[in-house]
Amino acid sequence: MKLKGKAVIAQGGGPTAVINQSLVGIVLESRKFTEITKVYGAIHGITGILKEDFIDLTDETTENLEQVAMTPSSGLFSTREKPDEELTKQMLNVFQAHNIRYFFYIGGNDSADTVRIICEKAKEANYEMRCIHVPKTIDNDLMINDHTPGYPSAAKFVAQAFMGINLDNKALPGVHIIILMGRHAGFLTAASAIAQRNPEDGPHLIYLPERAFILDSFVKDVKKVYDKHGRCIVAVSEGIQDKEGRPIMTRLVDTEKDAHGNVQLSGTGALGDFLAQQIKVELNIKKVRSDTFGYLQRSFVGCVSHVDQQEAREVGEKAVQFALLDKLGGSVTIHRTGDYSVEYQLSDFHKIAAKTKLMPDEYINEKGNHVTEAFKNYLTPLLGNDMPLLTFLKGSKVEKILNK
Amino acid sequence: MKLKGKAVIAQGGGPTAVINQSLVGIVLESRKFTEITKVYGAIHGITGILKEDFIDLTDETTENLEQVAMTPSSGLFSTREKPDEELTKQMLNVFQAHNIRYFFYIGGNDSADTVRIICEKAKEANYEMRCIHVPKTIDNDLMINDHTPGYPSAAKFVAQAFMGINLDNKALPGVHIIILMGRHAGFLTAASAIAQRNPEDGPHLIYLPERAFILDSFVKDVKKVYDKHGRCIVAVSEGIQDKEGRPIMTRLVDTEKDAHGNVQLSGTGALGDFLAQQIKVELNIKKVRSDTFGYLQRSFVGCVSHVDQQEAREVGEKAVQFALLDKLGGSVTIHRTGDYSVEYQLSDFHKIAAKTKLMPDEYINEKGNHVTEAFKNYLTPLLGNDMPLLTFLKGSKVEKILNK
Repeated sequence: MKLKGKAVIAQGGGPTAVINQSLVGIVLESRKFTEITKVYGAIHGITGILKEDFIDLTDETTENLEQVAMTPSSGLFSTREKPDEELTKQMLNVFQAHNIRYFFYIGGNDSADTVRIICEKAKEANYEMRCIHVPKTIDNDLMINDHTPGYPSAAKFVAQAFMGINLDNKALPGVHIIILMGRHAGFLTAASAIAQRNPEDGPHLIYLPERAFILDSFVKDVKKVYDKHGRCIVAVSEGIQDKEGRPIMTRLVDTEKDAHGNVQLSGTGALGDFLAQQIKVELNIKKVRSDTFGYLQRSFVGCVSHVDQQEAREVGEKAVQFALLDKLGGSVTIHRTGDYSVEYQLSDFHKIAAKTKLMPDEYINEKGNHVTEAFKNYLTPLLGNDMPLLTFLKGSKVEKILNK
Repeated sequence: MKLKGKAVIAQGGGPTAVINQSLVGIVLESRKFTEITKVYGAIHGITGILKEDFIDLTDETTENLEQVAMTPSSGLFSTREKPDEELTKQMLNVFQAHNIRYFFYIGGNDSADTVRIICEKAKEANYEMRCIHVPKTIDNDLMINDHTPGYPSAAKFVAQAFMGINLDNKALPGVHIIILMGRHAGFLTAASAIAQRNPEDGPHLIYLPERAFILDSFVKDVKKVYDKHGRCIVAVSEGIQDKEGRPIMTRLVDTEKDAHGNVQLSGTGALGDFLAQQIKVELNIKKVRSDTFGYLQRSFVGCVSHVDQQEAREVGEKAVQFALLDKLGGSVTIHRTGDYSVEYQLSDFHKIAAKTKLMPDEYINEKGNHVTEAFKNYLTPLLGNDMPLLTFLKGSKVEKILNK
């Protein structure tokens, strides 16, 4: 028995460079099925559902959809809102009023939890509908998934940025500390390692939230690199924590929390400035700079992984196919099947919702201040085959005449 | 009478994405002339000359040179050093010892001044040589020049970054303050305006060092935009100054000075954090973020203007041609001759060296908080013809049922 009704698509959490690929995948695939009578987009995620702020995408031209797919950041806009019991009930009312039977929510682990709750409440209310969570997050921290759409493009931005930072720092040496996004999982910060083609290249040190951050060790590590190379590039996750698991950032600034209880870590240069100050004072190095990449990492126009684009499109298409195959609901997950190939499955919400995948131990070096070759092998195929080729002058040294 | 001897090339000041195009232009063009017996590269600018740290580029393969040309940041490495009387004498000794008769220095206005001094000292010492300054700076602040190599690519990075920032901020609204490079001249900060395709797009406000920064007016400006659009994106030059001409940054942190007397403004998030705090406190807006683009602006791999690449190559080639035409020395300058075309001239050092071109009044709006259409018309052709095309969903609003 086919379930006939409208479909609604929403986007939640932080945007990515390819999140609209998933949106467009869902729209185009939905329009192939007669069960789906209309395709709506909810404006600003679940907030749009509550307010019935829908736009009708049924007649959106394919040409414009393909252009939107190439445009970064959530085309339907986003939200950090999390529905409680009461709001979930209101959402169900809206779904019923519009005869919405298919709900696709593109988001991270918090969004997955939202879809899980709605799916359960619909069942309790005996309102038949299919709720599918479509993965995206630059943090790459969804359980079960080999990786998540959005991460490869953000990782490519970070890797290319560090290639430039490394060349810049070679030209004008000093200590350069860069703060990267990553609340609990260090995957994005770890991507900086791709810039390191030779041992003398940066980043020379990488600090991740998965290992306790000891200020003394950090200073000693920087000294060691600086003494050897006369310069030092350090990649640091914004979420680095002390031994007790408290983010270092919370010591420095009054931090906010969102509806999911997440502490705000981005959008300030405080952590970088703090670490730079430590190095200046402790090591008496003159040129110490810190940069915080901030929101550029998730929205930069013009630095996208083709692999990421393709997979983000496919998770959208597969979401519709899974929903039409009479499955109540679940989360679309990406599984690596070869080097390099993937397949998509529909996984149980409980395995993903409100959980966080961290960097496995095999991807972090023993000292906890860099990544392993295994991590580089994991990431490299995700970046696509068009990473820039950089080179250097090979001319031989000229014999000195005056300064022999 | 032909002047026979070696040529030396050096790079000074902050790197750019296309500075190696100029280097390669000089090397390839030099190798065409029999007067030039060898082509040397000085490692780390004038520091390399003093130490006789030269590499021989005479036999560098053209293939590798073309790859280096595509690699951002100074391939010969750079310096902030400025020679005094004694060092200039030492440099002349080195030139004489190696029979170096051609000196090409790729750099900004401080580097132009260095070339001027060497040129004068050589003349005083009756040592015949040709000294040419080849322009580069992302700051776009060289007198006489319509614009400078390096600026278009940095401007393209800034414009593309703001396109993403704007989309991100539309998805998750708030106040977002971005600090950009620009000590005295606001050209790079002004480039953010290219991201503003519709009046509701950011950047909504742009503050430049050319206008006094009044904190009260800034807060009022942000309030006005925020009240209207529910969000506000602000582009701010790191070099913004108070009415007395003191950089706001110097109030916030202990700043360093380099050999040219320039205050260090980059490599800290202090200014952005300060401005964000003002908005939080004064306007009681919850989501206020600041990002400081930092060194990314001059070294990002993979965001280059083709116009910039071509011109950076040509100023290198022209430098050699001017030197061979029996001219003692000067600075290669770019002049706009059409929309869009340029020609190159050799200008007197005194017109460029140690001087700073600021944004002309016609490029800044009356209120001093944005740019004019004239500025956008000036910048647009420099960015090349491959700026990303972004779009949005056009679906019509769905009629509400419950929330009528």
